[in-house]
Amino acid sequence: MKTANAKKFFPHSTKVYTTGSRPDIRVPFREIELAHTLNEDGSQKNFNAPVRVYDTSGPTLDGPLPALRADWIAERAHATQLELARAGAISPEMEFIAIRESVDPELVRAEVAAGRAVIPINRCHPECEPMIIGRKFRTKINANIGNSALGSSIDEEVEKMRWAILWGSDTVMDLSTGKNIHETREAILRHCPTPIGTVPLYQALQKVGGDVDELTWDIYRETLIEQAEQGVDYFTIHAGVLKEHVPLANKRLMGIVSRGGSIMAQWMQNKGKENFLYTRFPEICEILQKYDITFSLGDGLRPGCLADANDAAQFGELTTLGQLTKTAWEHGCQTMIEGPGHVPMHKIKENMDKQLEDCFEAPFYTLGPLVTDLAAGYDHMNSAIGGALIGWYGCSMLCYVTPKEHLGLPNKEDVREGVVSHKIAAHAADLAKGILNAQDRDDAISLARFEFRWEDQFNLCFDPEKALRFRKESMPPGEEFEVAQRYCSMCGEKFCSMRINHEIRNQS
Amino acid sequence: MKTANAKKFFPHSTKVYTTGSRPDIRVPFREIELAHTLNEDGSQKNFNAPVRVYDTSGPTLDGPLPALRADWIAERAHATQLELARAGAISPEMEFIAIRESVDPELVRAEVAAGRAVIPINRCHPECEPMIIGRKFRTKINANIGNSALGSSIDEEVEKMRWAILWGSDTVMDLSTGKNIHETREAILRHCPTPIGTVPLYQALQKVGGDVDELTWDIYRETLIEQAEQGVDYFTIHAGVLKEHVPLANKRLMGIVSRGGSIMAQWMQNKGKENFLYTRFPEICEILQKYDITFSLGDGLRPGCLADANDAAQFGELTTLGQLTKTAWEHGCQTMIEGPGHVPMHKIKENMDKQLEDCFEAPFYTLGPLVTDLAAGYDHMNSAIGGALIGWYGCSMLCYVTPKEHLGLPNKEDVREGVVSHKIAAHAADLAKGILNAQDRDDAISLARFEFRWEDQFNLCFDPEKALRFRKESMPPGEEFEVAQRYCSMCGEKFCSMRINHEIRNQS
Repeated sequence: MKTANAKKFFPHSTKVYTTGSRPDIRVPFREIELAHTLNEDGSQKNFNAPVRVYDTSGPTLDGPLPALRADWIAERAHATQLELARAGAISPEMEFIAIRESVDPELVRAEVAAGRAVIPINRCHPECEPMIIGRKFRTKINANIGNSALGSSIDEEVEKMRWAILWGSDTVMDLSTGKNIHETREAILRHCPTPIGTVPLYQALQKVGGDVDELTWDIYRETLIEQAEQGVDYFTIHAGVLKEHVPLANKRLMGIVSRGGSIMAQWMQNKGKENFLYTRFPEICEILQKYDITFSLGDGLRPGCLADANDAAQFGELTTLGQLTKTAWEHGCQTMIEGPGHVPMHKIKENMDKQLEDCFEAPFYTLGPLVTDLAAGYDHMNSAIGGALIGWYGCSMLCYVTPKEHLGLPNKEDVREGVVSHKIAAHAADLAKGILNAQDRDDAISLARFEFRWEDQFNLCFDPEKALRFRKESMPPGEEFEVAQRYCSMCGEKFCSMRINHEIRNQS
Repeated sequence: MKTANAKKFFPHSTKVYTTGSRPDIRVPFREIELAHTLNEDGSQKNFNAPVRVYDTSGPTLDGPLPALRADWIAERAHATQLELARAGAISPEMEFIAIRESVDPELVRAEVAAGRAVIPINRCHPECEPMIIGRKFRTKINANIGNSALGSSIDEEVEKMRWAILWGSDTVMDLSTGKNIHETREAILRHCPTPIGTVPLYQALQKVGGDVDELTWDIYRETLIEQAEQGVDYFTIHAGVLKEHVPLANKRLMGIVSRGGSIMAQWMQNKGKENFLYTRFPEICEILQKYDITFSLGDGLRPGCLADANDAAQFGELTTLGQLTKTAWEHGCQTMIEGPGHVPMHKIKENMDKQLEDCFEAPFYTLGPLVTDLAAGYDHMNSAIGGALIGWYGCSMLCYVTPKEHLGLPNKEDVREGVVSHKIAAHAADLAKGILNAQDRDDAISLARFEFRWEDQFNLCFDPEKALRFRKESMPPGEEFEVAQRYCSMCGEKFCSMRINHEIRNQS
């Protein structure tokens, strides 16, 4: 299944652009065309203005992308967005984002300057459309893709990336650990209009044949630069797992469930040395500053089950991540912090508050959290519950979880389910935290529902294709779905509350 | 697909019983057998005790059920559980529930006596296994079934009921509005081990050919008694929608979305009279008291979209429901209150707190709430987010929502998805509100995950069949899943954090 034809999934949508202060700042939106409100006799009663929504899918879903930002990059010296913001400059990227988020460009600049928001965008990824991660802006979501030793090809991974952004993923992480890591990433980057994140440790370990003892700073450094040159926009770096934390993790029910965290723990234990990602951190900062790659400080000690949530290991690492944030900021590097994991609902706020305090309000980027350990096969929903909550409390980006979590690698349908469930969570968080105009689209669909504008109901929701398919599926045998139908099979015509409402209003 | 063979879906589970103070109090549990923890050489390291979980599926999923409670009912006068509790008696039903919930029988009695919990169980439904709805106990879930004018047969509805309780639904509402309402309900009741709820107004309206103007108290009263005699355990009664509320609802974006609410609003408007369910409420109480049917006071003015949440119409009705609760209690009737609907996350706590205050802590029973209007096709997840939150805040029962919400009637797979997603929400709520030992099963699955006991991981989760199927699906081509595998295809063997953990611990 190729995603190239977005019209198939969003049939009444058009990509439109708003131009900024210069002609090459062209900000994409998806505009959803609505039907007229009709009178009972079929004549037009009201015109319904189209609804514009944030769009992540990029200029095309077919072929490599143009270098949108080539001129912007060429025009300025090697400064990061953080350095530009601190100097009081509003970069084209910041203006692009302000239009995209419908906010004042000065808000974008101020939040980036304060470290409360990041714009993950490598100088070597000119195809990328600028976006922002910070709690005063729309809650973002990330989709993980990537092969493992056990399967999937380059084309499949590019296709998964396109598929994820079609459904609304704001960034994509390539977590490949299998064959052709470099080529897979290259193909993804040249086709991807959103920031790409990676965990460079995976490739570094691959280079030494998976033997943790052979891992060295030189190999890691070479890998960082290789990926930086390709254009990776943010790096997960597990620099916060220290020797002193390993005994804390050994007391846990599940120990260390982060791949990066467990690799570094094993390295430290075998070598008897401190984590080289920690000891070499200033050197890492210098590399990331040069490309304006954003730190995503990995939570190597995230809890893998409820029993381990908010424990000494997790919070010990979080304190270290706060120290590293300061160092990164001193080097002009943008920084966000990764978070759990498995956390019961009543412990989520404590985790969020502690992150804001310990990491000086650097943006939080969490996986879930999952609010129970029992939901294998349904972990995308489990994660959406925790994600909605932590987004409301102040988390800036949610890493999606798919129905295959804990079981294996997701296929395309799993990616779609994972993205849409977390779009729901992120939007719920935006409504709750009061993002301006977040409810407009909800109000538009509710009015469409009230007025029996079925097509608009499908087109305004997160997954028009599925909604229409489900509607058709639930028609009684022998009946076809018609868009003019003034009831549905849930209640049938006589018991339709919407129909009765119209009668009541007409009589009032 | 017949559900009769529960072993297919829960292959390592056995139904076991705990006997109470008399031999006919036999409380069912599902016992999940676990594998031994093995050493690397395959020898046994630890025995893992089986895990007992709450079980709703009843004595059999094949054929009509025995009259479990016949003797208990015969032994006592026509007192309701509320009246018994007030008199200081611990009924066999209360003892059954205490064992089921692992609490002191006195807690059950005290909560019922105070009106903070209900035991919906009609004297004429002796097949029903007692259960309790109240916020000091496990959060319950309800599944709606029922035909509409547009489809589905009696056998299909019985099958949907069995299917819903197999997956863990605590009560089932039969919302049939189509043909053979009486016969469908009879078949469901005689096969159902959980409480059954209905909305008698639907059948009353059916009796007058769907013509709201022909609805009378006599027809409604006759319908109440007909359903009471069959054994319906709780009735949704929309007695709180008053004439004064209709103008408030007309100001809304979506008006009245409750079927019962819109029917009564139309009746009041056409007749110029007050809601007869309100004016005749004391007479209704007398009928319900006689059978010990629990009131589920309907929220005819629940918000159908975010824009209408927590508005004057909704809260006006809630105040009326509080008055009615007092009247019901005076008649010795057990009472719970129905709630929304569509409510953004930041307004859920206000709604919950107001319900507890206005309705004197009578149990709250909500549909969702859905936290966005945009999730057609995914509304079960949308509802699980709001449901988890309101359950944590004090809601006692969540009405499920299926993926077909807003689109049509659910099929069997939709029912399964709807039940399991709300089991996740209810369990998340139980963990957050601190239900004793709620986390035991989570801890058991986490240990199984850590120890690569794959079968236990499947068997302990909410849907073992799906988890195993997904695991097999995600195996690379040509490889078979083996339960002894010490990694999964998400990371592959080298990058498996669990494997690395074991190495770290072995070396420590």
